[in-house]
Amino acid sequence: MNQSLSWLHRGVSEIFPNQPESQDPNESLVARLHRAEGPLRVKLGIDPTGADIHLGHSIPVRKMRAFQDAGHTAVLIIGDFTAQIGDPTGKSEVRRQLTAEDVQRNAQTYLDQVRSILDFDTPGRLEIRYNSEWLSKLNLAKIQELLTTMTVGQMLAKEGFADRYEKGNPIYLHEFLYPLMQGYDSVAVQSDVELGGTDQKFNIAVGRDLQRYFGQVPQFGLLMPILLGTDGTQKMSKSLNNYVGLAEEPLSMYSKLEKIPDSLIEEYFELLTPLALNELPENPRDRQKLLATTVVAHQHGEEAAKEARLAAETLVQGDATQAEAVPEFSLAGVEFPAKLFYILNLSGLCASSSDARRQIKGGAVRLDGDRIADENLAFASVADLNHKVLQVGKKKFVRLVQS
Amino acid sequence: MNQSLSWLHRGVSEIFPNQPESQDPNESLVARLHRAEGPLRVKLGIDPTGADIHLGHSIPVRKMRAFQDAGHTAVLIIGDFTAQIGDPTGKSEVRRQLTAEDVQRNAQTYLDQVRSILDFDTPGRLEIRYNSEWLSKLNLAKIQELLTTMTVGQMLAKEGFADRYEKGNPIYLHEFLYPLMQGYDSVAVQSDVELGGTDQKFNIAVGRDLQRYFGQVPQFGLLMPILLGTDGTQKMSKSLNNYVGLAEEPLSMYSKLEKIPDSLIEEYFELLTPLALNELPENPRDRQKLLATTVVAHQHGEEAAKEARLAAETLVQGDATQAEAVPEFSLAGVEFPAKLFYILNLSGLCASSSDARRQIKGGAVRLDGDRIADENLAFASVADLNHKVLQVGKKKFVRLVQS
Repeated sequence: MNQSLSWLHRGVSEIFPNQPESQDPNESLVARLHRAEGPLRVKLGIDPTGADIHLGHSIPVRKMRAFQDAGHTAVLIIGDFTAQIGDPTGKSEVRRQLTAEDVQRNAQTYLDQVRSILDFDTPGRLEIRYNSEWLSKLNLAKIQELLTTMTVGQMLAKEGFADRYEKGNPIYLHEFLYPLMQGYDSVAVQSDVELGGTDQKFNIAVGRDLQRYFGQVPQFGLLMPILLGTDGTQKMSKSLNNYVGLAEEPLSMYSKLEKIPDSLIEEYFELLTPLALNELPENPRDRQKLLATTVVAHQHGEEAAKEARLAAETLVQGDATQAEAVPEFSLAGVEFPAKLFYILNLSGLCASSSDARRQIKGGAVRLDGDRIADENLAFASVADLNHKVLQVGKKKFVRLVQS
Repeated sequence: MNQSLSWLHRGVSEIFPNQPESQDPNESLVARLHRAEGPLRVKLGIDPTGADIHLGHSIPVRKMRAFQDAGHTAVLIIGDFTAQIGDPTGKSEVRRQLTAEDVQRNAQTYLDQVRSILDFDTPGRLEIRYNSEWLSKLNLAKIQELLTTMTVGQMLAKEGFADRYEKGNPIYLHEFLYPLMQGYDSVAVQSDVELGGTDQKFNIAVGRDLQRYFGQVPQFGLLMPILLGTDGTQKMSKSLNNYVGLAEEPLSMYSKLEKIPDSLIEEYFELLTPLALNELPENPRDRQKLLATTVVAHQHGEEAAKEARLAAETLVQGDATQAEAVPEFSLAGVEFPAKLFYILNLSGLCASSSDARRQIKGGAVRLDGDRIADENLAFASVADLNHKVLQVGKKKFVRLVQS
């Protein structure tokens, strides 16, 4: 375990605590890595609440893989307990209560999607744990003990709580439990390093406190940037429709990535590929294509990446209908008669109905290659649209299907 | 259950909620009592943390007895769970962690002391419950549910939390659990009325919220004043040595009560006796004697009260050594040689060592009837003091004993 540690620092915002001068291996992750006699335990917690993992989610998972490749043990914690108790107030959409079946299915979907990133095969490199294993056994006496480790003031200093409290918005007492539950996960799996986005610093620090309380050497926190979405302005998120899904079709993935703005592209290379940043092509267009090809190849293989690239170039020449790899959009949820701008919005090709009308007026919308001019164009039945390719500009398109 | 309700209001600071105009029996305790078809369940929680019950503690117990006499069920809750988990931070002396044996012994001592007040015999009039019965079964999911019923802001509005938070003094998260545990006791026993001091309003209101959350009709809170001690200035408390213990010897009890200042005496009559306040003697001295006799008689019987009164009158004539009912003070914990002022302080006859010196200098201290003049008088061994009566002024005295 004495190899170079360049893999450790790539794309990292912060490692804490970090006292590189210290001779105490408990005060610097690098020192601990150098002196470790066996594999470290590297924790990543995931909420099995939704199905679609995007590239932003994949960043800490990629870092886990780097730890695995260096001989360490990835401990993936599925937050099934938290998901099943949910947020009983119903105030938090994120904390919707899920059934055991939901959780099981979501966890499986998650694992399927990260299979392309993590090493599932080498013995001892991956542990998958469900936090109900320990959280369901906590009784009131133990929970009281966890609660003694923190003060109200410390909790209210947490980002997200502080401003809500200032503004007089209610913070329900159970919300204070979540950081403690996540922290107790670290105790239960005896984590040495916890990975997370920069927004996880507080929760990871709570884990350190609890580990210290229970007589363990506290974990390190390794924080990574929150990935900006393809729009280059906001955090990648499904609801903002600026995301690239890990399970997305090669062509769709390629088409989004080859448009990443120049301001973002170095960060995308750093966080999503292993390529050396000082060896990237100079031409911006070439950089975009290299990024798209590399990421698609990682998820779908070299062959699929090459096909996606060819298909994308064909599409750019205005021949969308001929391409085989066009993503499908189901019209099952659409009531007919339906306006075209409504479908443009619903399918995600346009950001809103008014954006859709603008795109039609601007001449950017085509149906099976024919330009649409009437911003109020409507279709009487699903049969009028079935199997047609709807396109906005040169790079955004879907194949409309009945179901 | 349609008798007069004067017993209900005697010595009560507040009943809440209280909408006497309302036709809804859930909004006024009087209405609910009038319409009740069976006995109401009247809750009083006690902490089995210390052994000595004083007259201040007895006030809600007396009110419970009044409810019992009106046909209702007293539900006495022994907080054994809370006492056994204690306060793991060790910061709170009140929340010292006790063993199961401690708790059992303290609970038994408590019950022995309230036996003179409550009706233990009539079937259906008394339920004694230990809150470990339900609290030990709470798991994390259930506790989270309890926590959802309150916000941080509500909790911080509680007296005692608000100023600590303002001042930046730490409030540990587990402290938020206590009101919820007490509140959940009300759910578990399906309380209709909870009794407590005026300092319990917040906790009783939390019980109401939890009962409502769990689909029960919320309890009423019946709050009683906090009794001032014999000094007439501070809350009665053992540590301030201004208390009258329920288990105290008749003469000691009598002697303290016959000195109650005139400013307090009506409140003492109201809270500690059943006597009509408009029929009290006019002469202040007679009032004091009546109070003392009545309370002693209630605890120890008419005969003992009469004896105590006679003994006290004898003592006032300066003949303390002849009285039979002098309380004993054990010298077992005193290291010899010992200064007399030290023993005066330790025995509680004086409030401090410097007070003891002042009393000696002022000529108020006698040993077996002999006035002591030397404020630094010391005794070489316990034999010098064994069986002697030590007296301060006319009404405070103890018999010193070796063990």
